Amino acid sequence: MTEHSRERPLDGLRVIDLTRALAGPYATLLLAGLGAEVIKVEDPRGGDLARDNSPYVGRDGITVEKTHDDDISISHLTRARGKLGMSLNLKAPDAAAVFSDLVRTADIVVENFTAGTADRLGIGYEVAKAANPRIIYCSLSGFGATAPEGGKAMDIIIQALSGAMYASGGANEPPVRIGIPIADMLAPVFSVIGILSALEQRHRTGLGQHIDVSMLGALTSFVAIENWSAMAAAGMQARTGLTVQRLSPFGVFECADGYIALVAVHEKLARGLFRAMGQPQLGDDARFASRDTRVANAAELERQINAWSSGLTVKQAVALLEAEGVPVAPVRHPDEALQDPRVIARHEAVPVAHPAYENNDNLRTAGIPITFSDADTGFDDVLPIHVGEHNDRVLAQTLGYSEARIAELRAKGVI
Amino acid sequence: MTEHSRERPLDGLRVIDLTRALAGPYATLLLAGLGAEVIKVEDPRGGDLARDNSPYVGRDGITVEKTHDDDISISHLTRARGKLGMSLNLKAPDAAAVFSDLVRTADIVVENFTAGTADRLGIGYEVAKAANPRIIYCSLSGFGATAPEGGKAMDIIIQALSGAMYASGGANEPPVRIGIPIADMLAPVFSVIGILSALEQRHRTGLGQHIDVSMLGALTSFVAIENWSAMAAAGMQARTGLTVQRLSPFGVFECADGYIALVAVHEKLARGLFRAMGQPQLGDDARFASRDTRVANAAELERQINAWSSGLTVKQAVALLEAEGVPVAPVRHPDEALQDPRVIARHEAVPVAHPAYENNDNLRTAGIPITFSDADTGFDDVLPIHVGEHNDRVLAQTLGYSEARIAELRAKGVI
Repeated sequence: MTEHSRERPLDGLRVIDLTRALAGPYATLLLAGLGAEVIKVEDPRGGDLARDNSPYVGRDGITVEKTHDDDISISHLTRARGKLGMSLNLKAPDAAAVFSDLVRTADIVVENFTAGTADRLGIGYEVAKAANPRIIYCSLSGFGATAPEGGKAMDIIIQALSGAMYASGGANEPPVRIGIPIADMLAPVFSVIGILSALEQRHRTGLGQHIDVSMLGALTSFVAIENWSAMAAAGMQARTGLTVQRLSPFGVFECADGYIALVAVHEKLARGLFRAMGQPQLGDDARFASRDTRVANAAELERQINAWSSGLTVKQAVALLEAEGVPVAPVRHPDEALQDPRVIARHEAVPVAHPAYENNDNLRTAGIPITFSDADTGFDDVLPIHVGEHNDRVLAQTLGYSEARIAELRAKGVI
Repeated sequence: MTEHSRERPLDGLRVIDLTRALAGPYATLLLAGLGAEVIKVEDPRGGDLARDNSPYVGRDGITVEKTHDDDISISHLTRARGKLGMSLNLKAPDAAAVFSDLVRTADIVVENFTAGTADRLGIGYEVAKAANPRIIYCSLSGFGATAPEGGKAMDIIIQALSGAMYASGGANEPPVRIGIPIADMLAPVFSVIGILSALEQRHRTGLGQHIDVSMLGALTSFVAIENWSAMAAAGMQARTGLTVQRLSPFGVFECADGYIALVAVHEKLARGLFRAMGQPQLGDDARFASRDTRVANAAELERQINAWSSGLTVKQAVALLEAEGVPVAPVRHPDEALQDPRVIARHEAVPVAHPAYENNDNLRTAGIPITFSDADTGFDDVLPIHVGEHNDRVLAQTLGYSEARIAELRAKGVI
């Protein structure tokens, strides 16, 4: 797992990670892969709920149920890479002092409790700032830190509210649930941008600040990049399914054994497509001889392309189109995509394995999709299999607690 | 547009923006909204191709065709916010000196030419580094700076290759083209993370570096967060359309006038759902009385939910479910989502207007979805309506060129 022989961009920064589930842990995963030391804080009475997500990996390989004590949920295995794990019962009276000690040694705190919860627990920004005015404290929540209680913010709820579900699919079709947990993933990406921006500001001011990212806001801002209302006002259909007829031919077409995506908007590309189809005369057909007429006759053009491509395999269609210089790609399944040698060479999808057992299942997960000329990315070879696995390391080495103090915290159930 | 009465996190940083289309300009848009000064460099012979994207906005409101000289493509209007515009013909012999002068005053360069093009034009990282060793130079491309030529990298091509299209939709259904240009949008977000990380490293080393982000890698890393091959190995169906039966009831359900998303995985929520349906006895029905049996009978459970919800309006169904504490949301269209008062209050979707005409069409576009406690975000009130609009300002004030020099560059067609 440790691939960084050179320094990493965020070397020397420490993150106190109070996050659970996916959105928060993905933010701190990115920080860990960029070089920060991440201390994942979990409730000693069970830890992150993602530890209970099926499937698991362990001595028996991949299993639907957890059967051994050291079987690890793949969710936890992938999201906790490179993080130290310590336990802390944030509701215990003695936890506040430990939290403040952690904050004093740290640069960054990240939490994704429901808005308001961190303050109620006594671990909110004001408490952290009192311990360390340089702290950068990032809150991820469904609707923002100041929003009135807005209900539970699961990915699917945010997808529904953001308009993302009606961005895909055809004009008269049901909405589409996007299979990537995009609401859970975008808020952390913007959280990391916020944290790094605040670090830059701290170099000028010497002070940290609070950063507040909303899942709904992050995804809605992505949806907002398309000009939905302007297109509607101009009479243009925005929801167009597998193809985009105002750019025709543009879209996904059917082959005998799968699908291809192709783009032949401009004259030269359209001519290339017609040659690939073995019908160069279509380029002189009045219906398809110019961009405007191709758009006007898009339905018929798409019918002809599908009639041609559906008689070919994906491989055959791609080869014919590539030979004519037409942008084309097979529509690949995730499994195949994660084996792309370009992606593997750049550590954008990386192998993942149980710390104690070999990766016999060719499991791959998200890497850091950024290549630096003078820094490495990658995860330290550390992972909390059990809750509180690195308690001694963090409490003794980082905080300088005595053995007696640690024993007392353990006896009281604080850790 | 100017909402920043306080400082912005990236105040004082300067970006030379060589990007075109969407992926690159979205990266520099984020940097501009976070406070950096962005100088957008365009070819004097036409500028960014996004200037020709329909629809346009101008004195006649929203139009499909460009009819007045100052009509602006909404793509350009939204992506060029807060950027200064200068022209520079990068193929002209005298352009290299101007480029090096720009780089000497700057912190960051961003380009999204096809891999290798910037070097061929003499404006690649090595040239920039020679002019300014502190420069952080970010390249966005389809497959990464070092990848062999991989064909044109449009959003739809990358969606197809990444597995994202097969992440959505049902098990035996065609792939789904995601209606948000997610490949075009994710690479810039990771580019900004790379740039800000390199800034942090520069505070330690005093040196800049090259950052290289691949559209395919960025989107594939998002796809890779789901455990596709592990789920397949465990016999779990990953591609499940509008609902997720292994978490049943979980998904999108039909109403008389639209759709709702709901989540009632746990016992308490399932009981709440059954009460909302007016059928509390379902909680004691052997088919639905436990999480495991609900999963085993998911198809029948979903049928019963749809039978109930399709007799109600979205508003009625949401009210009944909210009253029982069940996480639920209407599936909203983008237009409605962009009017959400929470999103508007947080500047996550912001009004956008032609600089010379009022926003009578209630146009909204992407904001910066990050709220800082001690900084503002937002765009300077500047936008290059015409290519080279801020030439004098940049060349005279920033670079200190004489009037004679500027006139010479103009006469030679360099700017």
